[in-house]
Amino acid sequence: MNIKALAESYIRSLESRDWQDVTDLLSPDVVYEMPQSRERITGRDKYLQFNKEYPGDWHLAINRVVADDRHAVIWVNARVGDEPQVANVWLDINDDGQIIRVTDFWPETYEPPANRKHLVERY
Amino acid sequence: MNIKALAESYIRSLESRDWQDVTDLLSPDVVYEMPQSRERITGRDKYLQFNKEYPGDWHLAINRVVADDRHAVIWVNARVGDEPQVANVWLDINDDGQIIRVTDFWPETYEPPANRKHLVERY
Repeated sequence: MNIKALAESYIRSLESRDWQDVTDLLSPDVVYEMPQSRERITGRDKYLQFNKEYPGDWHLAINRVVADDRHAVIWVNARVGDEPQVANVWLDINDDGQIIRVTDFWPETYEPPANRKHLVERY
Repeated sequence: MNIKALAESYIRSLESRDWQDVTDLLSPDVVYEMPQSRERITGRDKYLQFNKEYPGDWHLAINRVVADDRHAVIWVNARVGDEPQVANVWLDINDDGQIIRVTDFWPETYEPPANRKHLVERY
């Protein structure tokens, strides 16, 4: 099973709103968690509804994927309208080759603290 | 080369302030980036100094690692004093088995929006 290709298909299917492909990639028992807000969505039907209802003109592009034989982490360059966002998406794959757990982090931009200014450059 | 073990050693060496071990794991040309603040530190000496100077009683524990043959992503459960924090740490490994690039994300906690309340539970 090619977990990296599966992870890429997951993001591309979401981006193209191909809900049948998304459904096929997910276990019926998939659990979606957002640790930053301690929110959990249980089951494929609710998770599909969450994605279908997510507000705004959202888009997802793959920047990087690291995968082993059962897990993947995807660095997603997202945007909602013109607003860029980054996600780190952790996937767990079950014995049937379906995604059984999705854990999303959505780190926000921030201004750098002054106490490390002597060591850093901005980019 | 066992990239997963290398990634675990990196976090454990930082946690134990074993600066010689950290030095051995890093390429002299290592680049450290924090995309949230667009900050970059270039070179092992400066990156070691950054870690040595980082303020507060900081601690790092490994929650998960996903690695392929050249990259790893580490989900770190950190704390500064009693304040828990999470990091997603992306590592690139060079031909010599040294870390050539470190990219850190430090996602912050947030309150969940109301518009998905019908789909989620809190944990």
